[in-house]
Amino acid sequence: MDYTKILNEISEELSNFNNPGKVASYIPELSKVDPSKFGVHLYCTSGTHHAFGDTQERFSIQSISKVFSLSIVMRLLGDDLWKRMDVEPSGNAYNSLFQLERENGIPRNPFINSGALVLADILVSEFDHPKDKLLNFVRNISGVPSIDFDEKVAQSEKHHGHRNAALANLMKSFGNIKNDISTLLDVYFYQCSIAMNCEELAKAFMVYANEGKILNNDEEILNPMKVQRINALMQTCGFYDEAGEFAFRVGLPGKSGVGGGIVAIHPEKYSVAVWSPKLNERGNSLLGMETLERLTTKTGLSIF
Amino acid sequence: MDYTKILNEISEELSNFNNPGKVASYIPELSKVDPSKFGVHLYCTSGTHHAFGDTQERFSIQSISKVFSLSIVMRLLGDDLWKRMDVEPSGNAYNSLFQLERENGIPRNPFINSGALVLADILVSEFDHPKDKLLNFVRNISGVPSIDFDEKVAQSEKHHGHRNAALANLMKSFGNIKNDISTLLDVYFYQCSIAMNCEELAKAFMVYANEGKILNNDEEILNPMKVQRINALMQTCGFYDEAGEFAFRVGLPGKSGVGGGIVAIHPEKYSVAVWSPKLNERGNSLLGMETLERLTTKTGLSIF
Amino acid sequence: MDYTKILNEISEELSNFNNPGKVASYIPELSKVDPSKFGVHLYCTSGTHHAFGDTQERFSIQSISKVFSLSIVMRLLGDDLWKRMDVEPSGNAYNSLFQLERENGIPRNPFINSGALVLADILVSEFDHPKDKLLNFVRNISGVPSIDFDEKVAQSEKHHGHRNAALANLMKSFGNIKNDISTLLDVYFYQCSIAMNCEELAKAFMVYANEGKILNNDEEILNPMKVQRINALMQTCGFYDEAGEFAFRVGLPGKSGVGGGIVAIHPEKYSVAVWSPKLNERGNSLLGMETLERLTTKTGLSIF
Amino acid sequence: MDYTKILNEISEELSNFNNPGKVASYIPELSKVDPSKFGVHLYCTSGTHHAFGDTQERFSIQSISKVFSLSIVMRLLGDDLWKRMDVEPSGNAYNSLFQLERENGIPRNPFINSGALVLADILVSEFDHPKDKLLNFVRNISGVPSIDFDEKVAQSEKHHGHRNAALANLMKSFGNIKNDISTLLDVYFYQCSIAMNCEELAKAFMVYANEGKILNNDEEILNPMKVQRINALMQTCGFYDEAGEFAFRVGLPGKSGVGGGIVAIHPEKYSVAVWSPKLNERGNSLLGMETLERLTTKTGLSIF
Repeated sequence: MDYTKILNEISEELSNFNNPGKVASYIPELSKVDPSKFGVHLYCTSGTHHAFGDTQERFSIQSISKVFSLSIVMRLLGDDLWKRMDVEPSGNAYNSLFQLERENGIPRNPFINSGALVLADILVSEFDHPKDKLLNFVRNISGVPSIDFDEKVAQSEKHHGHRNAALANLMKSFGNIKNDISTLLDVYFYQCSIAMNCEELAKAFMVYANEGKILNNDEEILNPMKVQRINALMQTCGFYDEAGEFAFRVGLPGKSGVGGGIVAIHPEKYSVAVWSPKLNERGNSLLGMETLERLTTKTGLSIF
Repeated sequence: MDYTKILNEISEELSNFNNPGKVASYIPELSKVDPSKFGVHLYCTSGTHHAFGDTQERFSIQSISKVFSLSIVMRLLGDDLWKRMDVEPSGNAYNSLFQLERENGIPRNPFINSGALVLADILVSEFDHPKDKLLNFVRNISGVPSIDFDEKVAQSEKHHGHRNAALANLMKSFGNIKNDISTLLDVYFYQCSIAMNCEELAKAFMVYANEGKILNNDEEILNPMKVQRINALMQTCGFYDEAGEFAFRVGLPGKSGVGGGIVAIHPEKYSVAVWSPKLNERGNSLLGMETLERLTTKTGLSIF
Repeated sequence: MDYTKILNEISEELSNFNNPGKVASYIPELSKVDPSKFGVHLYCTSGTHHAFGDTQERFSIQSISKVFSLSIVMRLLGDDLWKRMDVEPSGNAYNSLFQLERENGIPRNPFINSGALVLADILVSEFDHPKDKLLNFVRNISGVPSIDFDEKVAQSEKHHGHRNAALANLMKSFGNIKNDISTLLDVYFYQCSIAMNCEELAKAFMVYANEGKILNNDEEILNPMKVQRINALMQTCGFYDEAGEFAFRVGLPGKSGVGGGIVAIHPEKYSVAVWSPKLNERGNSLLGMETLERLTTKTGLSIF
Repeated sequence: MDYTKILNEISEELSNFNNPGKVASYIPELSKVDPSKFGVHLYCTSGTHHAFGDTQERFSIQSISKVFSLSIVMRLLGDDLWKRMDVEPSGNAYNSLFQLERENGIPRNPFINSGALVLADILVSEFDHPKDKLLNFVRNISGVPSIDFDEKVAQSEKHHGHRNAALANLMKSFGNIKNDISTLLDVYFYQCSIAMNCEELAKAFMVYANEGKILNNDEEILNPMKVQRINALMQTCGFYDEAGEFAFRVGLPGKSGVGGGIVAIHPEKYSVAVWSPKLNERGNSLLGMETLERLTTKTGLSIF
């Protein structure tokens, strides 16, 4: 498969794409990003890289970070984790309280906010320095030691985090949060603020395309069954209330963030990261989804 | 892969399985089935068959039939279909009215009852004899001309179909049903009553494992993109409110029915049908899910 | 209290009222009414009448009729009635399916559509000619033998009644409807089509202001406790999702209909009917509510 | 009306009442109360008092206090208050987040928790010492200067107040809370902890039965229209998800608290307070409702 050629075609086709999407504005820091940014980085299990556009500029990975915290927690805990959250798509907005209330404080899955807050709660319980743990994990699997939090974004999240505080308090009223709420919100807001570029994201997600191992050094981060399960979760729950659409149009497991990033993987083939800040109405990068749809259409290959 | 050996192992392991599930009882005809029935039939794209148990006895395929009606409609209509229904998991029970009301009569996906009723409405609009059309489609893709409706089950469905009548009326109040309600309910109830055995189901679903073509004669029933999309829909929406669990534990696109059948496919590898009438709390064959989980665990292969 | 003077003041004050409301349009027959119609008729327990405007022209009383069917059923049944419906405000639209589904087919109260459908079901069970029974009841308590159904409205309701059919089917699936659905819908649609003018409505509702007795002949239609309970239900549930607003602004038990009519009573003082077809966003006569608010403000008297 | 005789009858009839209710246990302090406590105090606008049982022992008035905070706020603000909350019954539990989320952070009415939290937010905005303001208001209208907060209850509320914190955070995310959340929660928890006995409650609520004036000294606390509106709100929203039932069975405006107290008023006739700690399934004093139903049945008088 000539990925360079395919990416070039996509780059050309989309060069005049009229994008009706809107940059996330719920926190001021995110709204300051240049909306015209656009980059794609594809990393093959064979070791080759293919890219175009703004692939070297870091952005706020936001919810993509939930895959990392889930991975750390799945390394620690066995099936006990699933007593505190489910593995089902939500059919509701990512920050909905309705379902969480009806289901007694048990989040639908680890990729909606409530689920990620429970993951943060577990990190606080298990580690003395949960934020360091997170950063070290990401630095290790990507092989990029300079990856860091964006302090301004983290502070901005904190000042506009009342919805997440509502979710955490509701879960605590049901007994599904163990630690002090401000402590776990702090971990959660920093986690969302991690800044990475497309190349770094593609490298980090190679673990999920490569049966749980870092490609360069064969270190096993997750065993194959755990990787398959994380990939299944990305497929069914990785795109807020648009997971079905992504499976339907793109056909790969993936995860999006409101910073405009999307990462997807084709098991045993490649990981790919795309960045374009304008979001569609359901909060996913509009051009990012378009790009990945063209990628799997042109290659004729999805996991389905 | 030695599928015969793997199936034998599974058969042995599960021979003393203590099954807490319950046979569907919402219609009297379904409750009469022998709860101990158990069969598996796996059909490889290489042409080989592997099976054990009650694979030659027909049962009511129920919601599995929705894949067939969707396929017929996708052959007819382009993307216009998706103006009348969405492709998202529902996060609610298969016959829930709540979401349908909130979303103005647009079903979440083609595999919940409301979606399937819209498919039936389209069949009524497009064909003079929609029930014949359905039967002929199934007979053709499976290569088994004797497949037929079960008249008793169809009548039983009709006498207990008020929930479906509520869904159809609600959608008609929103303008999303075009035909007379009793006409489309008739099609829908007969569709649910189709009786097939595991071997016949595995043969019919080979089309979805084989890029849209009948394996024996290479007739293209659906083009590859349409097959990938149907498979994606099965993955995200094929198990009522348990699609995430099935993706997580089994990792294959599939579809279940309250008659106790489950069919799953591994693209380019195999289709597999399993039948065990006792259902778990979410309405899926309990032993069927267990069987398929062991199958993908033993082979080490899922689509993820 | 000089009601004639008060009504004259209100008439004058509202003569140039700029009414942003909209005539009901969900059935064609209702949309044909002259939107400028406006009349008020107040009938005192002392026997005097006070009125202005279009009080002699009949209109479709619609949901006001639910008070009549409830009264007939409460004469027949004791507290058994309340096993089939509750007495609580709904907090949702009058035709919502959501709550009915969550609460297993038990309507919140007799004045939302689902509750009125259960009342119609009881009428069908208890009477050979339920429609005649209804008419005779209304003719008797109002003393006007010419009151009748409006055949065109009844037919129009039938052709646009899918939402009500959905409610009835949903309740039947829960076992809370005993008769054939088309039979009870027929009763319900005719009931809604009863045509009365303001004077006739004020006369009919005198029963609820006069401790259950017809003022002219002292015939006891309902005992005092049953009247108090019907009045309490009108107060808490008589205005769809606006019962609180009506209690807050007007402070009298009452019932509205989408034909633009509102009837209210002040126990032991008067009954009053107002008609103005333009509805506010919650489906109640906009000018009707304004009129009644001025009435209780000017008299300084509400039940509170 | 011989209220002493009527209360004696009720006392006798209920002396062997088998009470299946349960004392509130969500905070430890409340669960320590003696479940057999039972007292009634009725205070006539004529100035006479009638009572039996434990009417001199103070208990936690809990949600009854919401009537006081609403009164203070209605004295301050005009209709602007109603931009921040509605006046409709909720049809949901008192602490439900579902409706609040659907309706963009606007509470349904001032007597559910979310509404009372907005009232507390207003008190914090308007007064330097909002807790003192509350106490002084209650002391003034009841004429009992020793009424005070129960420090233990207030602390207990605080330690179990995550659900209320969730509500406040959700509203803050919609912009409907202006102050620091911990500050307003502090006011709210202290407000709930006010301890009063039946006689003191009956005295305080005389204001609502007496057209807004303190009976002893004619001081006007609220003008007649505001009192009528508060009474209307108590009628439609004063009993969580059981306001309809209370109107239906008792027929008086009133307010309950999970401490087992209920206060009701008959305008221009009397105020009455009853205390019995065992609650029914919807959180209202079971014996309290029974007592008040007998009171209005025996007198033959309700507001309806």
